[in-house]
Amino acid sequence: MTLPPPRTGYQAPPDLLARRARMPDAWSEAMLEPGTSGRNRVIGGVACLVCEPATQLGTILYLHGGGYRMGSPAAWANFASRLAAATMCRIVVPDYRLAPEHPFPAALIDALSVYRALVVTDRAPPFVGGDSAGGGLACALTLASGQAGLDLPQKAILLSPWVDLTVTNASYESRKSDLFFPRESAQEAANLYLQGHDARDPLASPINGDLDGFPDTLIFASSDECLIGDAQAFQARLAEARVPVETHIVPGMTHVWPVIAPALPESEAALNTIGNFIRTG
Amino acid sequence: MTLPPPRTGYQAPPDLLARRARMPDAWSEAMLEPGTSGRNRVIGGVACLVCEPATQLGTILYLHGGGYRMGSPAAWANFASRLAAATMCRIVVPDYRLAPEHPFPAALIDALSVYRALVVTDRAPPFVGGDSAGGGLACALTLASGQAGLDLPQKAILLSPWVDLTVTNASYESRKSDLFFPRESAQEAANLYLQGHDARDPLASPINGDLDGFPDTLIFASSDECLIGDAQAFQARLAEARVPVETHIVPGMTHVWPVIAPALPESEAALNTIGNFIRTG
Repeated sequence: MTLPPPRTGYQAPPDLLARRARMPDAWSEAMLEPGTSGRNRVIGGVACLVCEPATQLGTILYLHGGGYRMGSPAAWANFASRLAAATMCRIVVPDYRLAPEHPFPAALIDALSVYRALVVTDRAPPFVGGDSAGGGLACALTLASGQAGLDLPQKAILLSPWVDLTVTNASYESRKSDLFFPRESAQEAANLYLQGHDARDPLASPINGDLDGFPDTLIFASSDECLIGDAQAFQARLAEARVPVETHIVPGMTHVWPVIAPALPESEAALNTIGNFIRTG
Repeated sequence: MTLPPPRTGYQAPPDLLARRARMPDAWSEAMLEPGTSGRNRVIGGVACLVCEPATQLGTILYLHGGGYRMGSPAAWANFASRLAAATMCRIVVPDYRLAPEHPFPAALIDALSVYRALVVTDRAPPFVGGDSAGGGLACALTLASGQAGLDLPQKAILLSPWVDLTVTNASYESRKSDLFFPRESAQEAANLYLQGHDARDPLASPINGDLDGFPDTLIFASSDECLIGDAQAFQARLAEARVPVETHIVPGMTHVWPVIAPALPESEAALNTIGNFIRTG
């Protein structure tokens, strides 16, 4: 598989720069769950945050959300450490390049580069996971790893995954109360990432991918978010491809609640479920 | 709520009588999981099998499958005892009346009568569960319990539930390899149960019910069975009603595999998941 080089020359609009500036640009020990540690490491040529629990059962390559246009390992450090504690896995969060400065497939190239390095050094494929755009990217990475002749990830964990960049699922209309990632945000993010590339490309919209052989998948979505339509459609495609899939639909939650609302019992429940999913089967 | 009295005078065709005769007509201790016990008890005027583990955390009113036209507590005794062991709950399996001799709503009247008795004697609503037609009946019972002014069940456990007696979901076509409960069987069973009653009645096809306030629900279905369409549609309706729902879609399984294939690891996994679902949240 050869991915085309991402084009260059795009500039982020001022409001996006301002939104990025409101996120933490560095992590600190104080952000981490007790019993876990963090390090910055370059893996496969990409800067990564690595969060580690005391005992490690495996590795999760975790891709942060932010619509391919925002987000960073620093801003996800607290979640990564909670995920490390819940799963007893090393969590690797790549600082993949963002759109619009680096449009499709820059993020995927970076994710695949980290994945390839982990497969080599660990002598086993990692688990993959991600939220929102990161969930879609985790799925695109899974498709790309197969096309690159690598072993596929052991399992996939998808939190409110964004897997259809055509932004056409019916829930954008029926869940208009979702102010976190409504149609307008999704369309803006898709435009910045795709820069005219076909939104139906399976490596941008893995809902359109060949899902034969896709690993066991755990999906979370809220009843009240626009991306529930993406979650249900992806579950149906996985079922058609005879992939084991476990889906938890939780009412009253915001988009990607386990990441952004650590104090909610529903977030703790999600992390427990992820831990069980990693450890069983 | 008043349910109309079921009509009488229908006779089972000879091939159905023959199929019923091939099922066990009595249970024995040898069928039960070690550490559980069984008793026949009349509850709410309906004969029931009661399976009990040594320690009891609650009660599950469990409705057996068989397309409303076959099946019995005796034939489900082994599954009921495995469910008792996995959930640490008392399992109550009513011998509800079967079609065509007793068409809609006879089964529902019997289920509701047992439910009402359990609510009174336990001073708390039970969990409900069921497989195939029994899963649909568990949902209809949940709707009927609300209409009758009773507390709703604590949670619902649905194995390959049959919730749409119009027999129109697209999976009847796309999963033609399902020889266990294909369209022809579903249509025959629906005809025998409904005897001309409207298949869209929510108490026969709970997919059409008002699901507001429906309890937390766990659904299992196989990627390869016709009723996966019913499972996915019911999940979507629950999500619209803001009901927490957890769905496990497992490839390569027959309809209602946890009931009929005890030796499969996928059956053991399902029972473990049901146990966790009962105990948490």
